[in-house]
Amino acid sequence: MSDAISLDLATGVVALTAQLVDVPSESHHEAALADAVESALTGFDHLDVQRRGNTIVARTMLGRDERVLIGGHLDTVPANANLPHRLDNGLLYGLGSCDMKGGVAVALTLAATLTDPSRDVTYVFYEGEEVESRFNGLQHLADNEPELIVADLAILMEPSNAGIEAGCQGTLRVDVTTRGERAHSARAWLGVNAIHGAGDVLNRLAAYEPRRPLVDGLEYREGLNAVGIRGGVAGNVVPDECVVTVNYRFAPDLSEDDAVAHVRAVFDGLDVVVVDSAPAARPGLDRPAAAAFVAAVGAVPQPKFGWTDVARFSALGIPALNFGPGDPSLAHTRDEHVPVSQIESCETRLREWLRA
Amino acid sequence: MSDAISLDLATGVVALTAQLVDVPSESHHEAALADAVESALTGFDHLDVQRRGNTIVARTMLGRDERVLIGGHLDTVPANANLPHRLDNGLLYGLGSCDMKGGVAVALTLAATLTDPSRDVTYVFYEGEEVESRFNGLQHLADNEPELIVADLAILMEPSNAGIEAGCQGTLRVDVTTRGERAHSARAWLGVNAIHGAGDVLNRLAAYEPRRPLVDGLEYREGLNAVGIRGGVAGNVVPDECVVTVNYRFAPDLSEDDAVAHVRAVFDGLDVVVVDSAPAARPGLDRPAAAAFVAAVGAVPQPKFGWTDVARFSALGIPALNFGPGDPSLAHTRDEHVPVSQIESCETRLREWLRA
Repeated sequence: MSDAISLDLATGVVALTAQLVDVPSESHHEAALADAVESALTGFDHLDVQRRGNTIVARTMLGRDERVLIGGHLDTVPANANLPHRLDNGLLYGLGSCDMKGGVAVALTLAATLTDPSRDVTYVFYEGEEVESRFNGLQHLADNEPELIVADLAILMEPSNAGIEAGCQGTLRVDVTTRGERAHSARAWLGVNAIHGAGDVLNRLAAYEPRRPLVDGLEYREGLNAVGIRGGVAGNVVPDECVVTVNYRFAPDLSEDDAVAHVRAVFDGLDVVVVDSAPAARPGLDRPAAAAFVAAVGAVPQPKFGWTDVARFSALGIPALNFGPGDPSLAHTRDEHVPVSQIESCETRLREWLRA
Repeated sequence: MSDAISLDLATGVVALTAQLVDVPSESHHEAALADAVESALTGFDHLDVQRRGNTIVARTMLGRDERVLIGGHLDTVPANANLPHRLDNGLLYGLGSCDMKGGVAVALTLAATLTDPSRDVTYVFYEGEEVESRFNGLQHLADNEPELIVADLAILMEPSNAGIEAGCQGTLRVDVTTRGERAHSARAWLGVNAIHGAGDVLNRLAAYEPRRPLVDGLEYREGLNAVGIRGGVAGNVVPDECVVTVNYRFAPDLSEDDAVAHVRAVFDGLDVVVVDSAPAARPGLDRPAAAAFVAAVGAVPQPKFGWTDVARFSALGIPALNFGPGDPSLAHTRDEHVPVSQIESCETRLREWLRA
């Protein structure tokens, strides 16, 4: 802990975001930032602080009727000439500013300063969100110590323009393979062209009409897309195999199994192999805790189309929302930034709700 | 020229084939074999021998009314544990035995022993056939000294099961590209999927009915085939480009320009870029020299579907036929071999015709 970095949790959410951006924390290298977070939170009497790997859990233990989880990941994608932070015209630039150190700064500030919230709060600052699922600190807790993240509602501070994006769509990838028989292309009638056969796959995709189902009052938009195609042996060979990789983004009224069954039906008669999948998360806006939160922050919930860690809570039966500063489309860009006003707005509204 | 290899041109076509197989001559490494061929032919008074690089031209200069060219390439593809030769049950095995040292042995034997042929003969033993066109010794002659290969008829001793395969089909490769707009696959409606668009290309290919035109009395069979397809950015991105590589094998009633125009018409409205092409060769069976040869050797000419160097003669206005021992489908295989009887049959029939 020599050269340990010291965070000032009383400095205000914007200055704290800047401090956080300037502590590099690329995935697999979150230790320095996790040390700083642990050290900054450990001094408070109203918090029970636990550390697992580079994931920090800080809980109030006030015996309230309701418990809220507020979470944010500590890691970022690799730097892209966008460190250290800079502040320009109300925008805070820098790696991780939007995804999602602005949100982490809000959560840390609330953890430090809200000593007597109206609801018990579990703050989770976790590692390994930007890489494969097996490194995800939140998933490690869900797998090994789910009691640490039990809550009536989870709020992930993923960038959502300081609005509420509820639930998330699931994602399924499959390989659809057509087969044929090789031949020299000068004697093509001796073979069967597997790439020509893939026209059937592409025609079904082009004709497909994605659903736009209402789930808990929110309209989701599905999609079924070829995201890759490959085939070919050599410039003079009729190819015997063509593989189309298809990505199905499915609304939270379907389970992963439902999604697989649907895709198999679309490609009935063809060879379909599941490559990977992740479940959707229902918005859960019918749950009292979620409804109260929506009413309190005064935002009209929008559906979340992309996949986020809210699905991990959903799998535990915990309704979960995305609510954080920043435009999600700026995540992972060199020009990543977050509006100062959105960081402040998120803090203000969460603070009011946790005091009410 | 120390360690020079000595060929015995009087040993008979089968033994000579075996000698030739045992002199390695992978493309770009034909010098030792070219040295041996040059040395073996230079002693004969009835032959004018010229060397250009590793290509040897040996001509009779008897002032006959007609001149015939008999050609074979000296090079082979790389060895594949198939050296030295072995003779088994009437089959001569070994690298190059079929493609095409059996044919080269026939030509060398005729060159050495036919001192007074009824037609003047130009024997050409050339380098660089198995690699890119710019290394092809025959093409070098055609480009720089076409007078060395002037003839009324060219006979290439490419494997054709000791039958006559006339002319050859041309080959054209084009890239057909469809374009779209990238988007995150969770918000696919913001993009345009270029792979889905390629369904149009594949549908046209699947519906295409290849021609089977009669050219100089032979039925050719064309083919239009996707030989490759590629597209995709990442597993969560709607792709903005898909490229289908299409190979058109066209009959010798079309020029290369005709072939390009035809393919552009098939893919009308799509982005078509020519990758490479090689012309077809008309069988030329209507030419007196070719007709006389066919009658003399007593074979029913078949169309040649694949591309061979006969097209280089066709471009010079010289009718050209494939007539050599060996099954072309064994070329470039580890198990390459040639029937002894076919080597002998080719020699006998050529000798009789050149004496008549």
